[in-house]
Amino acid sequence: MVREVIEKALAEGRTALTAPEGRKLCQAYGIATPGEGLATSADEAARLAVEIGLPVVLKIVSPDILHKTDAGGVLVGLKTEAEVREGYDKILVNARAYNPDATIDGIQVQQLVNGGHEVIVGAVTDPTFGKIVAFGLGGVLVEVLKDVTFRLAPVSGDDALAMLDDIKAAEVLRGVRGAEPANRAALAALIERVGQLVSDFPEITEVDLNPVFADANGAVAADVRVLIGEPPAEVPRLPREEILRQMTRIFKPRAVAVIGASAENGKIGNSVMRNLIDGGYQGKIFPINPKADEIMGLTAYKSVLDVPGDVDVAVFAIPAKFVAPALEEVGEKGVAGAIMIPSGFAETGNVEGQQEIVEIARRHGVRMLGPNIYGYYYTPENLCATFCTPYDVKGSVALTSQSGGIGMAILGFSRTTKMGVSAIVGVGNKADVDEDDLLTFFEQDDNTKAVAMHLEDLKDGRGFVDAARRVVKEKPVIVLKAGRTAMGARAAGSHTGALAGDDKVYDDILRQAGVVRAPGLNDMLEYARALPVLPAPKGENVVIITGAGGSGVLLSDAIVDAGLTLMEIPDDLDAAFRAYIPPFGAAGNPIDITGGEPPSTYANTVRLGLSDDRIHALVLGYWHTIVTPPMVFAELIARVVAEERAKGNVKPVVASLAGDTEVEEASEYLFEHGVVAYPYTTEKPVAVLGAKYRWARAAGLLS
Amino acid sequence: MVREVIEKALAEGRTALTAPEGRKLCQAYGIATPGEGLATSADEAARLAVEIGLPVVLKIVSPDILHKTDAGGVLVGLKTEAEVREGYDKILVNARAYNPDATIDGIQVQQLVNGGHEVIVGAVTDPTFGKIVAFGLGGVLVEVLKDVTFRLAPVSGDDALAMLDDIKAAEVLRGVRGAEPANRAALAALIERVGQLVSDFPEITEVDLNPVFADANGAVAADVRVLIGEPPAEVPRLPREEILRQMTRIFKPRAVAVIGASAENGKIGNSVMRNLIDGGYQGKIFPINPKADEIMGLTAYKSVLDVPGDVDVAVFAIPAKFVAPALEEVGEKGVAGAIMIPSGFAETGNVEGQQEIVEIARRHGVRMLGPNIYGYYYTPENLCATFCTPYDVKGSVALTSQSGGIGMAILGFSRTTKMGVSAIVGVGNKADVDEDDLLTFFEQDDNTKAVAMHLEDLKDGRGFVDAARRVVKEKPVIVLKAGRTAMGARAAGSHTGALAGDDKVYDDILRQAGVVRAPGLNDMLEYARALPVLPAPKGENVVIITGAGGSGVLLSDAIVDAGLTLMEIPDDLDAAFRAYIPPFGAAGNPIDITGGEPPSTYANTVRLGLSDDRIHALVLGYWHTIVTPPMVFAELIARVVAEERAKGNVKPVVASLAGDTEVEEASEYLFEHGVVAYPYTTEKPVAVLGAKYRWARAAGLLS
Repeated sequence: MVREVIEKALAEGRTALTAPEGRKLCQAYGIATPGEGLATSADEAARLAVEIGLPVVLKIVSPDILHKTDAGGVLVGLKTEAEVREGYDKILVNARAYNPDATIDGIQVQQLVNGGHEVIVGAVTDPTFGKIVAFGLGGVLVEVLKDVTFRLAPVSGDDALAMLDDIKAAEVLRGVRGAEPANRAALAALIERVGQLVSDFPEITEVDLNPVFADANGAVAADVRVLIGEPPAEVPRLPREEILRQMTRIFKPRAVAVIGASAENGKIGNSVMRNLIDGGYQGKIFPINPKADEIMGLTAYKSVLDVPGDVDVAVFAIPAKFVAPALEEVGEKGVAGAIMIPSGFAETGNVEGQQEIVEIARRHGVRMLGPNIYGYYYTPENLCATFCTPYDVKGSVALTSQSGGIGMAILGFSRTTKMGVSAIVGVGNKADVDEDDLLTFFEQDDNTKAVAMHLEDLKDGRGFVDAARRVVKEKPVIVLKAGRTAMGARAAGSHTGALAGDDKVYDDILRQAGVVRAPGLNDMLEYARALPVLPAPKGENVVIITGAGGSGVLLSDAIVDAGLTLMEIPDDLDAAFRAYIPPFGAAGNPIDITGGEPPSTYANTVRLGLSDDRIHALVLGYWHTIVTPPMVFAELIARVVAEERAKGNVKPVVASLAGDTEVEEASEYLFEHGVVAYPYTTEKPVAVLGAKYRWARAAGLLS
Repeated sequence: MVREVIEKALAEGRTALTAPEGRKLCQAYGIATPGEGLATSADEAARLAVEIGLPVVLKIVSPDILHKTDAGGVLVGLKTEAEVREGYDKILVNARAYNPDATIDGIQVQQLVNGGHEVIVGAVTDPTFGKIVAFGLGGVLVEVLKDVTFRLAPVSGDDALAMLDDIKAAEVLRGVRGAEPANRAALAALIERVGQLVSDFPEITEVDLNPVFADANGAVAADVRVLIGEPPAEVPRLPREEILRQMTRIFKPRAVAVIGASAENGKIGNSVMRNLIDGGYQGKIFPINPKADEIMGLTAYKSVLDVPGDVDVAVFAIPAKFVAPALEEVGEKGVAGAIMIPSGFAETGNVEGQQEIVEIARRHGVRMLGPNIYGYYYTPENLCATFCTPYDVKGSVALTSQSGGIGMAILGFSRTTKMGVSAIVGVGNKADVDEDDLLTFFEQDDNTKAVAMHLEDLKDGRGFVDAARRVVKEKPVIVLKAGRTAMGARAAGSHTGALAGDDKVYDDILRQAGVVRAPGLNDMLEYARALPVLPAPKGENVVIITGAGGSGVLLSDAIVDAGLTLMEIPDDLDAAFRAYIPPFGAAGNPIDITGGEPPSTYANTVRLGLSDDRIHALVLGYWHTIVTPPMVFAELIARVVAEERAKGNVKPVVASLAGDTEVEEASEYLFEHGVVAYPYTTEKPVAVLGAKYRWARAAGLLS
């Protein structure tokens, strides 16, 4: 029936359904609408009004009049039969004055519903994510304060219920100022059904139920607006196994060819060769250069086709104009991955050139990274396929960036903080390989325990969400989404030609996918460095133990900012802490052990915090004193944490060190020993702990 | 008349005024209230209702019934004379059932007003700031979303108008969804009058005009609630000249005595002596120790009274229990400042001990810093009167902290970043000298160009605001207010015994005072380091020039977060920039010069940005390339900025450097040359520029 309605409207060249058509769709999906009927005479309107129950609303029904109010085609609150009759005639006069040629099907007589809470439920077709469902409170809350939440369609019943709590004014629906609470189950069901409707019928581009009146009994969509059109194009996706097979050859290649290898210093083809060799890559390296016989002690070949045996990866270090024929050869050779360093494609307006190489790669089944990238690193294979500095601090975080500049910042930060990295990958123009492909590899890569991605857009929002949801069950996925704000989004547009979606949509959907979103570049880098170091928490009870009362206050501020919960300390535990601290120290939470205390006070309280099962995470505030100098504190805490871990008391511990410059060394020592510590900041350690918690919640490890 | 009403109520032992009394106050201050009258019979009520105009509201008037609704003492929307008569009788019955002993003065008949916007205007007595005025939109916006704004009373007409725009839903008052806009002048006048009323009559502890109905014609307070009580105690203040005279002796002393000076390593009295001497202080130093004749080559005295000549400052380095008698002697000697390092006073529960020394100091006119502090530094005099590390990087920012731990973080951060400092001062328990005193000194101190203060509470909120307002005209005042959140505030309570006020009150009033509030410890430190380096902007037009498009997007995000404005580039200027960048680079704003450009492209575009008068500040995004390495960029930018400054083109320039570790050295070089630069972050440089702008706006330098 829905199919018929839509096809009829499309056949008539319409982009909108009429109100009765919209109502049919609602009925088919169990979405309540007010009692109503279509009248074609004033008498019929009056009769219907009495049947449905007065007061009523009258609305013009015409395929040619979309903005009914503007046309004078709506009258609200008609209370008597006489008013309905008069109203009927008046609307006809208005409508003819507005558009004399309009076909008028009649006038809709609708029960006036306006009890309970006014809410908006809708669905739109997002360029990145496809069908998404929106929910918000009606009136100024949505229109002025933009208090609205989005989810991918279809929406499960649980997600629909979560949407009710996801708006800032959520409390309103629970009933404030003596108002009746809304029927949450009914409202959630309505949201779920809208999600189902637009998922079942991709031709529905937009649904607006506005207002929906939700009271204790149920939820009724008082007005229904449905737009139809071309369904969004399906994004082609490769099977997971296929992606994995190619990505594994790319990250763990047995042979790498360098297209445009050079012996000449300063050339990209020289830097790539040097980094491959100096980085310690143990596979075969084949320099390709039509003018050389040998480069850096290795036999050079005129073409990749001349190379004996298989080649897994070809790193391109030649100008854009020479790429296409070389890529043909790479395809013929059966290479798995083309690492397309050259710029001069879509980012400079050369969209056709990019399209050309995408087609060559696709024809041959070659996966292409880039173009317009710095290359990639994979430390477990000592692989530095890039023109930048080699990187050798092996570790467990994989980082990717859409921008080369951000990639360089990742590299510099990694080197200066000695961040343990499994991979750094530039995706650049993302002509082929994108974040979904990389997530698919990192998901099953035992060398990678966390993933951090800088991105400006997503080619396939749903593909990303699917991949992220799988990965997040085991490993944190940190995302820095640039173009967060309206102005930022504008800049993204000018840079990549990609349309940056509305950030609220991204924000809600990334959260729904379990992704930890970093608010800025430095946050992404710090999360990437710290999250693999911290064990996962097992519950929400966070305790602050501090030598500086002043830090305790600031750490408490940070706890709230990070969405964490200061544990309410039970009496027996409070007494246990008090036994270790001076009588004027403050137990409770923060536990203020006071400034002049010896190392044993830190040791005793931290040990208690780690060993008591009711506590799930510790935030330490250190104050530099002569009695407990920074390195004494650091070594002591590292020892206590290690001892308790050995006993099975594995909890995240972060620390803020306030003191003279020795706290820098102490923070580094702690970091190396599994305690995420920073000097001169009370915010950063807690923000990082908050990020770990966001992941743990998404992975279902808490509650 | 107002005086009479209040005194009568106070004489009767009441804490609240009746509605008619409240209305009298409103009338006296020109605050419109609905037409109304007091009826003592049903007939009179009906007559009044007709006079005033139906529909009406009936409300019980009884000094014994405060919560009228609970008592069934309110009926709303009575439309006919008959309804009014019935209602009158019904309320009397309800009221007697609720409280049979209540004195009933009659029933108020009030015009039903409910057109336009429902807003709330109120005034409360804040423990920190005294009388403050509140404004918000009625209903869920205030009650659920806490969308409210505060100002110190009295409120000027301009400030009252600003309050209307200071709430998140401000747009509502301007009319949305076809609603009539509110009469802003009338609403502002009403706010101003409430502020005047509570300022004129300190006995009024609270005023609640809720709801006020504001439409295009005016604003009417439909319900008036006034609470009365003890006026808040006056905070004693010294005359400014007196404060300045003493503070000048403290910061620029000719002679310093150390009470408890010691030759023994590890003693505080030894560290203080060493820091005074090693720090290079050129005044006289008098060690005081009853058991020594000489300490570190200086003659020691048994008592400060034995010292020949005047002593300006006495640094206490003795246990708390010995302080009182020593302070008596310091007072007798006519010392200006007692630097009270010892702990063991109010912070450990020894409130009486603290009170005792406060009284001794006050009796002698000695100003006391602390107790429970690390001491203080004043670099222009090479004065390190502290037990911590000496500090010698002279510069122009003065920092203060309420907590010793935070003081140590200030010291460590300052040393590691080589921050140019004029003073670092611990205020600890603030038993006497507080932030107002310090601001009074720094205001006129030519060595100080910016002030940064960590505080957990204010002893005298109004004193602080007065002082800050004066200072802010010339120098930025940065404040880190700890206890920002509900949880943080609780921790503050347990730490200092000070009641931390509601943060929204602090936030609004600090902003009103022109203070730049830092969201966290590290932000305060970065603002302190950077603000004196940056020249003040002359307008709001910010331009981003970036080599990395990816940084451009993130910098744009940061611009919005920092409350800054990306300039709309006029066509001629756009063309001028385009002349310097590759055809595929993006002009507009950000100006994306693209990654592979030589130093001259940075030089040309930055020079243009500095020399064009329409541009007021530059944000640079650097991308590490072989063509323009980090130090080449840094030296080039430093030179161009210096050359343009010499021509009078003095503008703030900040930079984000994305690249390998060499960008750290480049950032330091730029910082030393007046360009605030950071590696691996796009947020921090823009946040600092935002802080500078907040100050410039408060100082009236813009628009």
